[in-house]
Amino acid sequence: MNKIGTTVAAISTPPGKGGVALIRVSGPEAIEIVSRCVVLRSGKPLCSLPARQAAYGDVIFEGAPIDDVIVTLFRAPHSYTGEDTAEISCHGGILLTKTVLTALLAAGAEQAGPGEFTRRALLSGRLSLTEAEAIGCLLEAGSTAQIRLSAAPARTELARALGELHDRLLSLLSTLYAKIDYPDEDLADLTDEEIIGHLTAIFDRMQMLRKTYRTGHAINEGIPTVLCGRPNVGKSSLYNRLAGEELAIVTELAGTTRDVLSTTLPLGSVMLRLFDTAGLREASDPVEQIGVSRSRARIEECELLLAVLDASQPLSDEDRAWLEELKGYGKPVILLLNKSDLPRAIQPDALSTFPHVLPVSAATGEGLDTLTALVEQLFTDETLRVGEEAILSSARQYAALSRAQEHLATSLSAFSAGLPADAAASDLELALGAMAELDGRAVNEEIIADIFKRFCVGK
Amino acid sequence: MNKIGTTVAAISTPPGKGGVALIRVSGPEAIEIVSRCVVLRSGKPLCSLPARQAAYGDVIFEGAPIDDVIVTLFRAPHSYTGEDTAEISCHGGILLTKTVLTALLAAGAEQAGPGEFTRRALLSGRLSLTEAEAIGCLLEAGSTAQIRLSAAPARTELARALGELHDRLLSLLSTLYAKIDYPDEDLADLTDEEIIGHLTAIFDRMQMLRKTYRTGHAINEGIPTVLCGRPNVGKSSLYNRLAGEELAIVTELAGTTRDVLSTTLPLGSVMLRLFDTAGLREASDPVEQIGVSRSRARIEECELLLAVLDASQPLSDEDRAWLEELKGYGKPVILLLNKSDLPRAIQPDALSTFPHVLPVSAATGEGLDTLTALVEQLFTDETLRVGEEAILSSARQYAALSRAQEHLATSLSAFSAGLPADAAASDLELALGAMAELDGRAVNEEIIADIFKRFCVGK
Repeated sequence: MNKIGTTVAAISTPPGKGGVALIRVSGPEAIEIVSRCVVLRSGKPLCSLPARQAAYGDVIFEGAPIDDVIVTLFRAPHSYTGEDTAEISCHGGILLTKTVLTALLAAGAEQAGPGEFTRRALLSGRLSLTEAEAIGCLLEAGSTAQIRLSAAPARTELARALGELHDRLLSLLSTLYAKIDYPDEDLADLTDEEIIGHLTAIFDRMQMLRKTYRTGHAINEGIPTVLCGRPNVGKSSLYNRLAGEELAIVTELAGTTRDVLSTTLPLGSVMLRLFDTAGLREASDPVEQIGVSRSRARIEECELLLAVLDASQPLSDEDRAWLEELKGYGKPVILLLNKSDLPRAIQPDALSTFPHVLPVSAATGEGLDTLTALVEQLFTDETLRVGEEAILSSARQYAALSRAQEHLATSLSAFSAGLPADAAASDLELALGAMAELDGRAVNEEIIADIFKRFCVGK
Repeated sequence: MNKIGTTVAAISTPPGKGGVALIRVSGPEAIEIVSRCVVLRSGKPLCSLPARQAAYGDVIFEGAPIDDVIVTLFRAPHSYTGEDTAEISCHGGILLTKTVLTALLAAGAEQAGPGEFTRRALLSGRLSLTEAEAIGCLLEAGSTAQIRLSAAPARTELARALGELHDRLLSLLSTLYAKIDYPDEDLADLTDEEIIGHLTAIFDRMQMLRKTYRTGHAINEGIPTVLCGRPNVGKSSLYNRLAGEELAIVTELAGTTRDVLSTTLPLGSVMLRLFDTAGLREASDPVEQIGVSRSRARIEECELLLAVLDASQPLSDEDRAWLEELKGYGKPVILLLNKSDLPRAIQPDALSTFPHVLPVSAATGEGLDTLTALVEQLFTDETLRVGEEAILSSARQYAALSRAQEHLATSLSAFSAGLPADAAASDLELALGAMAELDGRAVNEEIIADIFKRFCVGK
């Protein structure tokens, strides 16, 4: 990350050969630097170009024109970064694009780091931190629901809701300060009962927002899900069927041990972070024992168990033992009776203690729509309008809001118990601090670095 | 390729995750289609947006906003394709970008094929065929000289020069027609001597242009070059040294046989299409015999031989025999005396019959600048100002111009010999046909298809 006050440039389009590439330059000298290496065909100086007006010109490198380009200026603060910005759309050759960037660097720009344009937008107040996070998610989005959750209306609404909470806390805090500074005068604009009412209303609003994280988590971060079952029950075909065509894009084959085959895939509006495991049989072979113990560890961490049985076979004692063990984890279990396309031999009464039992067929895809609906119902609040309402979508946001709410609760107790206003004010300040960290008004460099390290160069 | 009259859309930036992606829509309904799925933040209808004015808006898909974008309209004929065009710059997520494209296809656009935007530019007369070829080359360019050869000034100049030749031929042809139609009247604006003078001047101009292909070929298509020599003379290190860091981008490891290791690399202003061969030793092993016979075939096809010797070893009889054989091919040979950093043991007098003998060191890089200068001198016309003058840069262009020149020569002979004007006119028509094929005024679909199949979708 370059210093604020510098002017940075980067290729903002994906690397590789394409028809067009877009190079972005941002900073106080953006227009000056671009005018050193782009000559407009109109013959007019670049600085005379009105904002947001696309103009045709040539990029000059080492004295010779190397590409004819479209250049558009965005003047501060009306740009993505909030700084003067130039966007150059050039032909998309790999060397050509690099050469245009080289011309800009030679003219005085510095190479932008990963996510630096978005980070500058954050620092100039054009974006809040939750909006920057949402833009990062847009680039990674693997489902339509995830796109909607991060698209402009939803991310703006979340920023607005958090800003409103922040402002309400700030306003109450100044009321408390007035009480502290002038205890004998009647300067406070609110009565104690009114203050308690406001604190309670903010608490309730925070509670409501915190509840949205369940949905945001399922859509955006994904539900850690373990697919388990004996070999030959069709677990792998089910895994492939669930992954479908999207696999090529989202697959993450980690490690070499057979039991951590994992992939991220959309299932209706939610994402599953699906782990295929070796199963839970009692194993005598020491290697298999390790596999089984890893499966158990994975199950401990997951939020959903998809237990696969072969419906065309009767239950074995081993199956019964294994199903009992699954119950013991206290996680939601969905029993998938696979091979529903074959004659059924499994005894349904033996499964009556499981609330969710679905016949499915990995071969035909039968039952997967029902599974999708069930998972959506279990893990999302279907009354929430995704894409319109404020929804928390990351563990960081949830943790910060939870901290703010805890401090607020302490403040409310202190104030309700009639303790001096100092105590309530001090906790309210902590709540306000947590809110400021949440939306990036005041946040430490480590958190910012952690968020932006996942961005690509050019964003 | 969709029919003209349809409206097409494609992602014009490279595939993959990036900060920004650009989606292009072109055709008579471009603005109407985009207005069905993009709502401007200003609240104004999209069709009211002035040309080339970037505006902020939201893409709507299935009733919900999915991304905030910048949209810019280019109205016919002032666009790349010559048709109404909209460019949408959206966030660069893989699924997000596809979803924006899907929204446009759902609104009535058709998916553009490879190179379709450039092809439409050709068909609407915005570009000549040689300009379209140059744009294709820009995307593939691997050297600065190649970029300059294909950049706007050079490709425009070539189009202008060819257009001028076409117009001069056309004007002479109409003079000949006047002579044919009204043989007794004095309607022709030129005397026979003047016509001969003009035909000769055009012939000379074509000759001059044809000569530029030597340079254009070396810069753009590359010089097929065989690197040969015994094992252990440092051939492979030289190969790697020549390829340098650029290898990662330009390498083409084709096949599995050892002798067709090949790569394309810039050497100064020219490109080498470098083949590493197994050498030319007499082999008894049948597998090696095949290797040697392949080396010979490669040498037959090449334009330059780089023969590597180990300068720290005296010449062997085998070396002498091999060098004699090389001479027999009648190709330019540059003898590279490698290991110039070690004490020299080779006998220079034995090499005196080779005009180009250079000490080099694969270890230190010594001598490679001299090699670069020598190759440039042998294969390019250094008085040509690359990037400014008209230069032919493909075998297709050279063949078409050669055909035009041959027909012109026949026409000139006929006219000079006093044959009836019909004979001269008929050959002049053929010359004009070859020129029209060259710049794409009249060209068959096969040639166009062959040129555009190398383009990517979105260009």
